Amino acid sequence: MERKQGLQVGVIGLGSMGFGMAGSLLRAGHSVTGCDVHPEPARALAAAGGRAASKPAEAAAEADIVVVVVVNAAQTETVLFGPDGAAAAMKPGAVIIASATMAPDIARGLAARAAALGLLYLDAPISGGAAKAAQGELTIMASGSPEAFSRARPALDAMAAKVYELGDEAGVGAAFKVVNQLLAGVHIAAACEAVTFAKRLGLDLDKVYEVITGSAGNSWMFENRVPHILEGDYTPRSAVDIFTKDLGIVSDIGRAEKFPLPIAATALQMFLMTAAAGMGRDDDASVARLIAQITGLDLPKKAR
Amino acid sequence: MERKQGLQVGVIGLGSMGFGMAGSLLRAGHSVTGCDVHPEPARALAAAGGRAASKPAEAAAEADIVVVVVVNAAQTETVLFGPDGAAAAMKPGAVIIASATMAPDIARGLAARAAALGLLYLDAPISGGAAKAAQGELTIMASGSPEAFSRARPALDAMAAKVYELGDEAGVGAAFKVVNQLLAGVHIAAACEAVTFAKRLGLDLDKVYEVITGSAGNSWMFENRVPHILEGDYTPRSAVDIFTKDLGIVSDIGRAEKFPLPIAATALQMFLMTAAAGMGRDDDASVARLIAQITGLDLPKKAR
Repeated sequence: MERKQGLQVGVIGLGSMGFGMAGSLLRAGHSVTGCDVHPEPARALAAAGGRAASKPAEAAAEADIVVVVVVNAAQTETVLFGPDGAAAAMKPGAVIIASATMAPDIARGLAARAAALGLLYLDAPISGGAAKAAQGELTIMASGSPEAFSRARPALDAMAAKVYELGDEAGVGAAFKVVNQLLAGVHIAAACEAVTFAKRLGLDLDKVYEVITGSAGNSWMFENRVPHILEGDYTPRSAVDIFTKDLGIVSDIGRAEKFPLPIAATALQMFLMTAAAGMGRDDDASVARLIAQITGLDLPKKAR
Repeated sequence: MERKQGLQVGVIGLGSMGFGMAGSLLRAGHSVTGCDVHPEPARALAAAGGRAASKPAEAAAEADIVVVVVVNAAQTETVLFGPDGAAAAMKPGAVIIASATMAPDIARGLAARAAALGLLYLDAPISGGAAKAAQGELTIMASGSPEAFSRARPALDAMAAKVYELGDEAGVGAAFKVVNQLLAGVHIAAACEAVTFAKRLGLDLDKVYEVITGSAGNSWMFENRVPHILEGDYTPRSAVDIFTKDLGIVSDIGRAEKFPLPIAATALQMFLMTAAAGMGRDDDASVARLIAQITGLDLPKKAR
């Protein structure tokens, strides 16, 4: 197989998602420079064949593509436009792929600031979790100009199994992700409520998992998260705090738009209670542990 | 193929589910006598090769198996143990298959009353909707004695693609169904909330359906019900009032057990609001129409 000419790619944010995406870019033959607030993951990236940068500007200086995989809108703004930010260091015509979940109007604002510097911007939230990130099999919900898509394409292909092209300006990708997170968060909280309720009713939880995943009550999240409860394993694959954040974004937009979101609001409160009880950094299925604590239920414990 | 010796089966309740189940029993070679509060469906059953009875006792008199497919626990009690009820007319050792969604303790009580008359009782709630009922491809969540399962088997096989055997006494099947309905109801209400929110955000709803059904925000109900919204078709496949009833049962059990169910409680309120606005008999995706009415959104209208 002919090796394609690799691009220079900067990856800012090397958490469980960003580190996996950087690895996928390396495997696809690109030169990857990574940067994180913690030094360890950048060193690990260097050991894997990439390069470590200490600041966003340094990761972005020679890049054709800069992928931003930080936690939220505020961090995205800081790493792009703050001190030592990436944007001012980028070559004209280079493209920013911004993957944090954020409100659509904030995505539009960031895209406008990038455009003012002669940069392209792809509003490109991701879905799929750390395992899919490491495998280069994410789902990306993207919007931006055809030129931004075109320049970003080699990186998108390396990182994603599926790229939805949702519109020609920033904000649309963000809005799709927000709608997805509304459902994802509600379904996790509902799964935790249903499984603990089933336990209170005296049901065999393994059987509950079997029956519900074969019935009309199933959801992607029920199928994916309930095994964590059955195994008593709350090692964070995705943390409670991700959903206090994402359902917080949903809630903020609902208030700004005067749009009532009663189910999402209730789910947000369940994640907030779980975080308040000290489990914010644990797996998001910890909502079930919170309910068990409150109600005195014995859920399965992790085998040692 | 050798024709098996058919059994005598009474079907009490010939609504969209019961009529389909009666048809499946006929196709399997059983003799079916049907009964409903309305005369038309029993006549239609007679025209299709069954027999019409005017009272539960008449449908049950010669039956080996009596399938009860009425709306709720109260109707189940009435058709079994009320005036002209089925139970007193049944042969000793005959089996009742009770399919209405109800609280587990009520199912246990009905089973005990049946046992006192020398009858077998299978607690056997159904899932799958009218189309699967007509095709003999329901899911049945059943519990009861091995003898009850054994006697009921020919009817179960005729009506269901999948029979879960969940325990050896009544109440367990009911509890599984209640847990399934908690999730199903929450997922419908959440789908309606998410789709209307997406509309407010200016998104293309067909694209939302495509993206979400391929993403972590998907649920069985999202996939099944959102097309009703996209087509603007609220002809009831399953009605809002089914979920005011079933989430009402969930809520009653939660209160009796002192078990908090905040997500289910919120979903119940959404169905109650939709019913209060005059849409109780319309398709359960009408929660989206309620939200659209409240917020002034234009959802798709049905093509004529």
